Amino acid sequence: MADGPELVLQPPSPELAQRIADTLRFLSADQVQKANSGHPGLPMGSAEIAATLLTRHLRIDPKDDKWANRDRFVLSAGHASALLYSMLHLVGYLTIEDLQGFRQLGSRTPGHPEHGETPGVEASTGPLGAGFSMAVGMATSERMLAELFNTPKFDIIDHYTYVLTGDGCQMEGTVYEAGSLAGHLGLGKLIVIYDANDITIEGTTSLAFTENVAERYRAMEWHVQEINGNDLQAVDAAIVAAKEEKTRPSIIVAKTVIGRFAPNKQGSHSAHGEPLGAEELAAAKAARNWPAEDFTVPQDVADYFDIRRGEWLAMRQEWNEMYAAYDKKHHSTARELARVLSGELPKQWKNAMTEFPAGTAVATRAAGGTVMNQLGAVIPELVGGAADLAPSTKTEIKSGANPDFIGRGSFLGRNIHFGVREHAMGWFTNGMALHGGFIPYSATFMVFHDFMRPAVRLSSMMNLRNIFIYTHDSIAVGEDGPTHEPVEQLATLRALPGLSVWRPADANETLYAWQAMLEKKTGSHAICLSRQNLPVLDRTRYAAARETLKGMYILDTDTERSAEILIIASGSDVHLGLAVAEKLKEAGRAVRVVSSPCIEVFKTQAEGYRKKVLPKRLKKRLVIESGVVQGWEGVLGDSGIFIGIDSYGLSGKAEMVAEKLGMAVPAVMAKIEEAGW
Amino acid sequence: MADGPELVLQPPSPELAQRIADTLRFLSADQVQKANSGHPGLPMGSAEIAATLLTRHLRIDPKDDKWANRDRFVLSAGHASALLYSMLHLVGYLTIEDLQGFRQLGSRTPGHPEHGETPGVEASTGPLGAGFSMAVGMATSERMLAELFNTPKFDIIDHYTYVLTGDGCQMEGTVYEAGSLAGHLGLGKLIVIYDANDITIEGTTSLAFTENVAERYRAMEWHVQEINGNDLQAVDAAIVAAKEEKTRPSIIVAKTVIGRFAPNKQGSHSAHGEPLGAEELAAAKAARNWPAEDFTVPQDVADYFDIRRGEWLAMRQEWNEMYAAYDKKHHSTARELARVLSGELPKQWKNAMTEFPAGTAVATRAAGGTVMNQLGAVIPELVGGAADLAPSTKTEIKSGANPDFIGRGSFLGRNIHFGVREHAMGWFTNGMALHGGFIPYSATFMVFHDFMRPAVRLSSMMNLRNIFIYTHDSIAVGEDGPTHEPVEQLATLRALPGLSVWRPADANETLYAWQAMLEKKTGSHAICLSRQNLPVLDRTRYAAARETLKGMYILDTDTERSAEILIIASGSDVHLGLAVAEKLKEAGRAVRVVSSPCIEVFKTQAEGYRKKVLPKRLKKRLVIESGVVQGWEGVLGDSGIFIGIDSYGLSGKAEMVAEKLGMAVPAVMAKIEEAGW
Repeated sequence: MADGPELVLQPPSPELAQRIADTLRFLSADQVQKANSGHPGLPMGSAEIAATLLTRHLRIDPKDDKWANRDRFVLSAGHASALLYSMLHLVGYLTIEDLQGFRQLGSRTPGHPEHGETPGVEASTGPLGAGFSMAVGMATSERMLAELFNTPKFDIIDHYTYVLTGDGCQMEGTVYEAGSLAGHLGLGKLIVIYDANDITIEGTTSLAFTENVAERYRAMEWHVQEINGNDLQAVDAAIVAAKEEKTRPSIIVAKTVIGRFAPNKQGSHSAHGEPLGAEELAAAKAARNWPAEDFTVPQDVADYFDIRRGEWLAMRQEWNEMYAAYDKKHHSTARELARVLSGELPKQWKNAMTEFPAGTAVATRAAGGTVMNQLGAVIPELVGGAADLAPSTKTEIKSGANPDFIGRGSFLGRNIHFGVREHAMGWFTNGMALHGGFIPYSATFMVFHDFMRPAVRLSSMMNLRNIFIYTHDSIAVGEDGPTHEPVEQLATLRALPGLSVWRPADANETLYAWQAMLEKKTGSHAICLSRQNLPVLDRTRYAAARETLKGMYILDTDTERSAEILIIASGSDVHLGLAVAEKLKEAGRAVRVVSSPCIEVFKTQAEGYRKKVLPKRLKKRLVIESGVVQGWEGVLGDSGIFIGIDSYGLSGKAEMVAEKLGMAVPAVMAKIEEAGW
Repeated sequence: MADGPELVLQPPSPELAQRIADTLRFLSADQVQKANSGHPGLPMGSAEIAATLLTRHLRIDPKDDKWANRDRFVLSAGHASALLYSMLHLVGYLTIEDLQGFRQLGSRTPGHPEHGETPGVEASTGPLGAGFSMAVGMATSERMLAELFNTPKFDIIDHYTYVLTGDGCQMEGTVYEAGSLAGHLGLGKLIVIYDANDITIEGTTSLAFTENVAERYRAMEWHVQEINGNDLQAVDAAIVAAKEEKTRPSIIVAKTVIGRFAPNKQGSHSAHGEPLGAEELAAAKAARNWPAEDFTVPQDVADYFDIRRGEWLAMRQEWNEMYAAYDKKHHSTARELARVLSGELPKQWKNAMTEFPAGTAVATRAAGGTVMNQLGAVIPELVGGAADLAPSTKTEIKSGANPDFIGRGSFLGRNIHFGVREHAMGWFTNGMALHGGFIPYSATFMVFHDFMRPAVRLSSMMNLRNIFIYTHDSIAVGEDGPTHEPVEQLATLRALPGLSVWRPADANETLYAWQAMLEKKTGSHAICLSRQNLPVLDRTRYAAARETLKGMYILDTDTERSAEILIIASGSDVHLGLAVAEKLKEAGRAVRVVSSPCIEVFKTQAEGYRKKVLPKRLKKRLVIESGVVQGWEGVLGDSGIFIGIDSYGLSGKAEMVAEKLGMAVPAVMAKIEEAGW
């Protein structure tokens, strides 16, 4: 689809356009007023922006909110959810009753936009900066898919990504990171409208935020315009100009009046985050000659959107026809596009993986790199990168048809240099997962998970298919010392509802962890990998590596019935567990070792299996993990012993640090003796 | 102390200055080589910058690394620790033997700088962006102390804060946040030297980082210079110009060559993060006609620093004399300065706190605000602010002598508008705590702890006296929905070694939590406070509120001996626990309720007390907390029941959300019944 309109778009008259803006304005204020909770200020100030997007720019399908080539509209200022819901009502996705249920339990109009709960909500937003940063990932996905699947005659994937952002977002570090990356990449089809109303919760932006935002974006290689955001024509002209700019992302700094037309509150932070009050709202409506009745949609506005929906459907129909021709001419490409958009993996993808031979020693980060390259050869949609640590995280995919790095204006590739931008990286991959067409991953050192945690939280909440790779997963980092040594990160990852946390014990557990992470169409995963080499376990002696898929399994199967002591460990600590088991066996004790690559998956196993792996009768449970005890409740029990670390790490050679912190055979044996086992 | 040199400073000749730079260069490379681990690149590229700082600018006391008015030098590029240690050797803080122990367990020269382990290390750094962001807090502290304590004749507090930062730091979001805030505040005495060597781990900055950093800083209201950072004279001239700039922070974009003089590796990322290798290092030394022997300090360099140390001691002596005159003329002010610098609280400070009357209902965030204002009246050094949420977090201190907000060029105040910059806010308060003179706090919604977690981690690791206030601490946030409702944050806060996590059950527990947080000179704290009103418990019926100080205590003391069921809860959930206890008592059951405001403090109590509160015999333990189960191991036991939330929250009225998620009396009673208690 070319950039010009293929269909005669019928823009509303200036008067009607203003009435549409006022409809959005008052539908939004009414929602907040009825709920007696929410944010009327930005919706009332941005109504002209929203009206212009709806009537002149957004290309969507009012019957199909999943259309792959729809324009994405992300409300980064998620607290202005009422505005988004008002827009979605005019589009046809939400009813007036939905709007009346604003912020009520079980409604489709929750307090902040929740992806999956409401058609047309492209992303869960609310935490400031999130939407903007995810949109950068969406816009990149669009360009990458276009490079892969479009042909000279068929622009099958060709849409814009719009963002509405506010002052709060613009102060967030992740927005700077994502903005710098977007400018670097040259995302010409990313159009950000910045509702600059100069008001935040504590007062005016003059209190804390006086930088020149426009100049900042110019420095970050963006196309920048500054306009009056309450001027319908100016907004339209700016969006048109933004579309004409092909090589740089655009930001439109749109000065608006918060709570516009509320006679006593407009322009003040009192309009930001609480209902206007019945009187003030009535006065605002009166000032606009607006019907006093709440949730009013004037007939001419409703009529206009009937026409607009027809236009939208015709646009979609035109795309369908193009797609049919494309499918005819480039059938296998079209099938591949359909496949990646559906989230189905290629048939036989598992055949690409080959188990590692026993007898060698491989760091699980290196094993992960090997597996990713095996999988990458057959799963082209597996794409991602690291926060400037790829040589250490081993996450570059050099296999497959397009093994290059994407870069400024060149989007044919699968590896991404995220730069030292962990937080934006997390959001970026969320945006890719939301967009569709790719299975994203991101990588950094495990201790730096902390820098990107908000993104991992929302990925888990949205149940996105997203893979977070964390290497250097323990004090075995060694010389880099405590600032670089995770001790609490395994616990905090496991604390996130909806996230599966993998910590494989050897190369083959890593392989099956990857299988498990890819297998389902939804679900977020973290995989925690060792810096140091770990022996590849001899699976003729131990349980088959594919047992990994069960989350926990009995490693030394010969001990199934007889054991009196149960050792449970994850990742590199499994090897310590095995060494301790040897010692105990030498002393004539019957020991079982359980490997625990993923507690979350184990919890989903049938009760019978769980009881077999962790029999109730076995109370002498020794849990070993190089980290805090948190997360092992329900496994450890009243009589168990935990071998872990309850302080920060130390700088020194890895083995010496481990010994000093008690993560070595003699210290563990001493604890067992002390317990009188 | 005025800005001009009071003493004839003896700058080295250009040749000697270069030899000093080379001394730093090769001492650093030798450390990395000997350790066979570390980062030679930035030290070798920044040696001229470090030499210029040492010989011409830094004002320190070689005998007293704690001197209050010393210039602060923060190595934000913490991986270049070898350079800092080389500098500290020339200053006299470290021996050659210390340098030879680089990165070894137990040495004073750990892999990344660790505050407290090494004299002269002003902050633990390594996580990129941390040092820069903390320095903004330090520089603000300097200005605030100067406003409070200097007089027209006595500039007792008057020092610079220098930062050495690299490309990695500059990509981090927190650096943008802190930089924007520093520009807004107008921190004229903050001087940042940006080692722009255009190299990061994945390659050149052209791969991911092509913004115009200088222009970005201009947009953020900084004084910006661009120089050749390997030109000793240019570096000096730029620092002189930066000092002349009084109203804006300065950044000197110093282009350098990474790994400078290593013939085969300079200018490449192969020089960044691994030893040069013996051969390459030898070749580099040969290129400089440098002695081949490692850890060489030429005699003329050593001699120069003997003189330089004399100058430094004379500077310090001059300050001491000024201070003596100041103390004589402004004795009470001088005593107050000495007090705040010592960290001692004013005598009788606890008398300022008054308990809240029972029978009312107060949100603990509101109670927190009241207590902070009571304390603020007598503890002027208690300063801080919120990330644009002060009206909601209730953290503005309106009491005391200077209750204003600090702002652009006006530093006489105690409240800070941090803007929507949670991450930088956390680091900023770390910087204040490191600087001395203040007890900082910061505030945001609890769910946004995630945005600032790296700073909280390092505060805990450095054992800084720092208070993190998190309000809206549960699903009782209600309408704002899951993106704003913490469920895993209590667990993840408790997972941080060294952090005390307070969650008071009512206004009076809040009061004593504040007492506990302030009482000690070291230690980081988080306090988690309710959005919603909570009854102020009637302490004639329940245990005295000061029991809070023990971390956990028996609330209904009449049940001490007889109980068969133990209910343990924290914060707002204590009230649910009490309601459940009432129900159970009605049914004739003997129940004890334990309030748990701080698990970490409870763990430090004598075993006798702990056993009294949680008797071993009481196995029917009902733990109630609106969050994930993590962190309650060791309390719950094999037979306990946990009432909590293992999913994300919901948008709706708070009570309805709570009911839906099982946090209400009927659901709890059903679980107890189900368990057959």
